[in-house]
Amino acid sequence: MNEGKFTPKVMLPEPTVRRLPWYLAFVNILRGKGVEYISSTQISKEINVDSSQIAKDLSFLNIRGKTRIGYHVETLATVLADFLGFKTIHNTFMIGVGSLGGALVQDSGLSQYGLRIVAGFDINPDIIGTSRAGVPIYDVAEMGIRQKELDAEIGILAVPVEHAQEAANSIIEAGIKAIWNFTPFRIKAGEDIVIQNTSIYSHLAVMYNRMESKSTEK
Amino acid sequence: MNEGKFTPKVMLPEPTVRRLPWYLAFVNILRGKGVEYISSTQISKEINVDSSQIAKDLSFLNIRGKTRIGYHVETLATVLADFLGFKTIHNTFMIGVGSLGGALVQDSGLSQYGLRIVAGFDINPDIIGTSRAGVPIYDVAEMGIRQKELDAEIGILAVPVEHAQEAANSIIEAGIKAIWNFTPFRIKAGEDIVIQNTSIYSHLAVMYNRMESKSTEK
Repeated sequence: MNEGKFTPKVMLPEPTVRRLPWYLAFVNILRGKGVEYISSTQISKEINVDSSQIAKDLSFLNIRGKTRIGYHVETLATVLADFLGFKTIHNTFMIGVGSLGGALVQDSGLSQYGLRIVAGFDINPDIIGTSRAGVPIYDVAEMGIRQKELDAEIGILAVPVEHAQEAANSIIEAGIKAIWNFTPFRIKAGEDIVIQNTSIYSHLAVMYNRMESKSTEK
Repeated sequence: MNEGKFTPKVMLPEPTVRRLPWYLAFVNILRGKGVEYISSTQISKEINVDSSQIAKDLSFLNIRGKTRIGYHVETLATVLADFLGFKTIHNTFMIGVGSLGGALVQDSGLSQYGLRIVAGFDINPDIIGTSRAGVPIYDVAEMGIRQKELDAEIGILAVPVEHAQEAANSIIEAGIKAIWNFTPFRIKAGEDIVIQNTSIYSHLAVMYNRMESKSTEK
């Protein structure tokens, strides 16, 4: 049994999981405005997702809307945040505290989504032993030892691309089972490792390509 | 005619555009190692993409591999970076210089991919008039005026979610045609506006969900 918790026991379709945070963001705005109930049709109008799709996505959650009234906003926000894992603290290592890694360490928004960066790792002697935004930075060679005390669940990979695979191997050897890969390198790992790729530069390429094709449309 | 430039005239399939930076990242590593030629089969082995898919993706570029030798690494790297728009400077505004926006302004990696943040905008009087990583921060109300002198092509949206639509409207009113949206809010805009959504918190949700389902698999 689920003991009243809404943590998912099955792997949901990725598009659904990607859409749920959109609903949460919108519902949180409504909550801030004191709105009590919202229907999937109303959500649909505001965020450009088909209302039947919204109803289907929300059906994975342990929540039911009332006929003609819709979902209770407060409950929906709580259930969504809980379901998405945003209310659970996930200790996390930042591997590579250079430009992007250093920037992400400073993004306090991540902690609002349940991600707590507890240590950074680098090979640069100038920053090893220092801290950034309160996060201590250690030598990459210490990852295994630090993991024993800090018990991180996630390793964020933000090293230069040529070190990506090597750093990923260190994360896995330290016993961490999930890698959030911000490099454009496709890392290789066993089936038991969860890899989430977030290549912001790939998104940039997609945007440039669309901009280019729009401007030549004219 | 294309005048020897490889800038795309058509909108490529998004999955292709997303994969091309992976090839570029890998090819740049090879270049650093002094490798001269690479085949799609060899790329395939290293980055876990089917070799026929790689050949198909690269067929959009103005480059041909040699039989049994493959692609000239140096040329492939140049053509890819050029094609992806990474060699062209795109002036960009950062809208919202809070936690995430302020972090992104400091990511010098973006400039290596052709994105130059020329100004930040915020509503917080404490930071208006200051600068961050050399980028001046102005009042959001000045966006239209600053646009006349700075001619930005892209607006990065990194405001709190409840201000996302309003800030997007300001970007569009300033005459900017492309919005890189880092908020989880689905903004609405006309057909002529390019919107690229990069909700890193959605990726986090997908990762949490996979971690949860892996751990319950056992």
